[in-house]
Amino acid sequence: MIEDVKNAVGDTCAIAVRFCADGGLARNNTIRDGGVPQVEEQKEMLSILAELPDLWDLNVSDYSFEMGSSRFVKEASLENYVSYVKSITSKPVVSVGRFTSPDTMVAQVKSGIVDLIGAARPSIADPFLPNKINEGREDEIRECIGCNICFAHDNRGAPIRCTQNPTMGEEWRRDWHPEKIGPKKSDDEILIVGAGPAGMEAAVSLGKRGYHVYLAEATRELGGRVSKESKLPTLSEWNRVYEYRFIQLEKLDNVEVYRESKSTVDDILEMGLPHVVFATGASWRKDGFGLLNTQPILPQISNNRIFTPDDIMNGHYPTGRALIFDDDHYYMGSVIAEKLIEQGCQVDFVSTFSNVAAWTRHTVEQERIQARLINLGVNIIPSRNLKAFEGNRVTLECVYTGSEEEMQVDGLVMITARVPNDDLYYELESQADALSAAGIKSLARIGDCLAPGLIASAVFSGHKFAREFDEPDQGDVPFKRERNVLGL
Amino acid sequence: MIEDVKNAVGDTCAIAVRFCADGGLARNNTIRDGGVPQVEEQKEMLSILAELPDLWDLNVSDYSFEMGSSRFVKEASLENYVSYVKSITSKPVVSVGRFTSPDTMVAQVKSGIVDLIGAARPSIADPFLPNKINEGREDEIRECIGCNICFAHDNRGAPIRCTQNPTMGEEWRRDWHPEKIGPKKSDDEILIVGAGPAGMEAAVSLGKRGYHVYLAEATRELGGRVSKESKLPTLSEWNRVYEYRFIQLEKLDNVEVYRESKSTVDDILEMGLPHVVFATGASWRKDGFGLLNTQPILPQISNNRIFTPDDIMNGHYPTGRALIFDDDHYYMGSVIAEKLIEQGCQVDFVSTFSNVAAWTRHTVEQERIQARLINLGVNIIPSRNLKAFEGNRVTLECVYTGSEEEMQVDGLVMITARVPNDDLYYELESQADALSAAGIKSLARIGDCLAPGLIASAVFSGHKFAREFDEPDQGDVPFKRERNVLGL
Repeated sequence: MIEDVKNAVGDTCAIAVRFCADGGLARNNTIRDGGVPQVEEQKEMLSILAELPDLWDLNVSDYSFEMGSSRFVKEASLENYVSYVKSITSKPVVSVGRFTSPDTMVAQVKSGIVDLIGAARPSIADPFLPNKINEGREDEIRECIGCNICFAHDNRGAPIRCTQNPTMGEEWRRDWHPEKIGPKKSDDEILIVGAGPAGMEAAVSLGKRGYHVYLAEATRELGGRVSKESKLPTLSEWNRVYEYRFIQLEKLDNVEVYRESKSTVDDILEMGLPHVVFATGASWRKDGFGLLNTQPILPQISNNRIFTPDDIMNGHYPTGRALIFDDDHYYMGSVIAEKLIEQGCQVDFVSTFSNVAAWTRHTVEQERIQARLINLGVNIIPSRNLKAFEGNRVTLECVYTGSEEEMQVDGLVMITARVPNDDLYYELESQADALSAAGIKSLARIGDCLAPGLIASAVFSGHKFAREFDEPDQGDVPFKRERNVLGL
Repeated sequence: MIEDVKNAVGDTCAIAVRFCADGGLARNNTIRDGGVPQVEEQKEMLSILAELPDLWDLNVSDYSFEMGSSRFVKEASLENYVSYVKSITSKPVVSVGRFTSPDTMVAQVKSGIVDLIGAARPSIADPFLPNKINEGREDEIRECIGCNICFAHDNRGAPIRCTQNPTMGEEWRRDWHPEKIGPKKSDDEILIVGAGPAGMEAAVSLGKRGYHVYLAEATRELGGRVSKESKLPTLSEWNRVYEYRFIQLEKLDNVEVYRESKSTVDDILEMGLPHVVFATGASWRKDGFGLLNTQPILPQISNNRIFTPDDIMNGHYPTGRALIFDDDHYYMGSVIAEKLIEQGCQVDFVSTFSNVAAWTRHTVEQERIQARLINLGVNIIPSRNLKAFEGNRVTLECVYTGSEEEMQVDGLVMITARVPNDDLYYELESQADALSAAGIKSLARIGDCLAPGLIASAVFSGHKFAREFDEPDQGDVPFKRERNVLGL
């Protein structure tokens, strides 16, 4: 087939062939061998075909490894499975491997593993990655965090988003260039309250437009939920969302950062800046409202054995036997479980779905997360809802039959949903006269403070605010789709 | 809002309002109340709005009830939840309720439950349903079997298919009219081997075109897998696939049906009909090849404790403790489990997925199936693969971690995949000289004998063969999509 294609195209274009190099070796060994050729057969096949294509494009058979998230697969992890190929062929070889660091990329080429670096996700996070390496601007690279939110959107048939790059998918629709942003349209100064992912992104992007920005953060540490969550087990690479923006902030003289500056209504009125943006984040609920439970389960919360992820991230842990109730189904339950195991707890993991972290099937992580928790000794109790928690007695209910069972636990960690931290916004918003007297022209909310969601959504929200500030209202912009017209 | 809309449209069109009548009462009571208004609030709301719309369109809050499959929800089952509405409003009222029988529809209107019958699925199965009732042609109605394959396709973003109506979705693309089919193009006679859903549909449709057809069935009973499966618990309404086609066959003098006529190579050569169509179905595998296991697990099958759904449907049951291994994930595992409970077995249900009958989430049946099995006392063992079966010792493997456990069972029922019954076809196909001498011009396969699949796929395959027989080859016909162009 390769020969036929080469004959058909002649010298009008090069022919690349994708080749699964590992023969099943790199598969998660908990997943049954799928009948793929074994590695010795693969090597034999490659020897026969070695010089036919113009380029060998290598991958491995386990997509959750090839497309692995940073939680489970480290940079250049395909190396052991693809490195033999260059000893068999003289043709150039490309492979992927969740490459994000220029140093790793260069090392792979220099050591003769591959000739070309394949990097789809890093190019989504930063389409100008090669240029920035070439021009020595490594500190401007938005380095992929390996969260797989891009793949999750694609997998769900939704327009692709990126946690690091809020312009992803908006280049054509909204005319957002990944590297360029329009100049300021006024000399109005802006106060941003809260330096989490939304606040930092808004500050950087407004700063690049030339606005004078005051970024006030209540705590000593910038980064908000990103800084906190990236300290949880397996999430360390997510801190790049903070790091990239911190480095950019440092370069912007027109953005003033104030740490340990908790803003009150009086502070904000006293400052009297014409525009105030609330990026004050969200807090995890204790009452049980979540995916399945659209009403609170535990409306009267007076039980000091109830914890939230915020408590855990702030160093306030249960002891003894802790039950995690997950009606959220993304990553948080699993990283909290691992954190509590580290803290010496005995952990029960109750999910309202039949498996752990069900939504992470979209990020190709579900099987790896569940395997990890089982191997850590977490006791998984699927398909149960939480009905009550009194004293240290938890009542669980089978989601299928309604049958109930009781357990004794020392602590209950509620992972269900979050509520915006918007009290300050509403308090100010209700004081029209005071705002007017202070010269405050607009109040806005961005990120989790407006609508709790993905970190990607918070970054997007902050970026969108910065792009649209002082600009004519575009209203809702419809998605554009290319329409392929097939010749008849 | 209703008033505003009425003011805006004036008398140019009527305004229908959809109203959830049950206030949560009709929800599967195993599913936690979703915070919807309770029925008394609903009645109060309706009283206020009663005369505003021109039509009330009633539904209930539990979609798995409103869109219930015939396995779990019977005809007119919304009656108790919507019947109060007509006592509150003088406006016409429509509601759905899986109506399939004209008698039930008329009774609902006559008894004042509703004024109009909503029937989406029955109209998919037979778009000419109202005309056929009006013209007294009830015996020509393709009555919906309530399998929800239509909804499953829609839910998965695929073109809608219907088990009863193979022209569904092909009206525009292939120009297939649900009631009209082109006349025959030759006087060639056709032998169809096998009177399952594909064979019967092909015989009826070729018969309607005017061809002389011989339909040879090995057993006494027509209907193939449909007749057998519809005798399993909860599947009785599926037998309409057979009943509709049997009634049509009876009307066609040019279709000759031969029961208890198992065809051999010699029989077929001796008959010497110019066209032979094999609709010989498929058989369930015993070796374990399935969704997760793409290689046989039990290649050396010499254990007489291993059963398949075919064994069960033929009355050959395990006794004592039976383990169902489901690597198929559609309905078969659950109905076999129920059948074995009826037979007095103690049943373990092992699935390679984390819940039972996972694919039935697309037919809105998953939660109901799992609840039913738990309530029947079936012991559900999720997320395990089958590794070995020796003597009466089953070895199971955790799909996440690979850890193994053993169980003692008296019988093992393998529900994994099917293989075509195509030996006869291949035996004939290899005898070119004999075929030629016998005057046989073509051999073809349809339905499960060609590719084991849904009953809907078998009916489609039989219909497609009949439509395309003696016609110029159209090749693959691309799907057509309407393109909505929005005004700017």
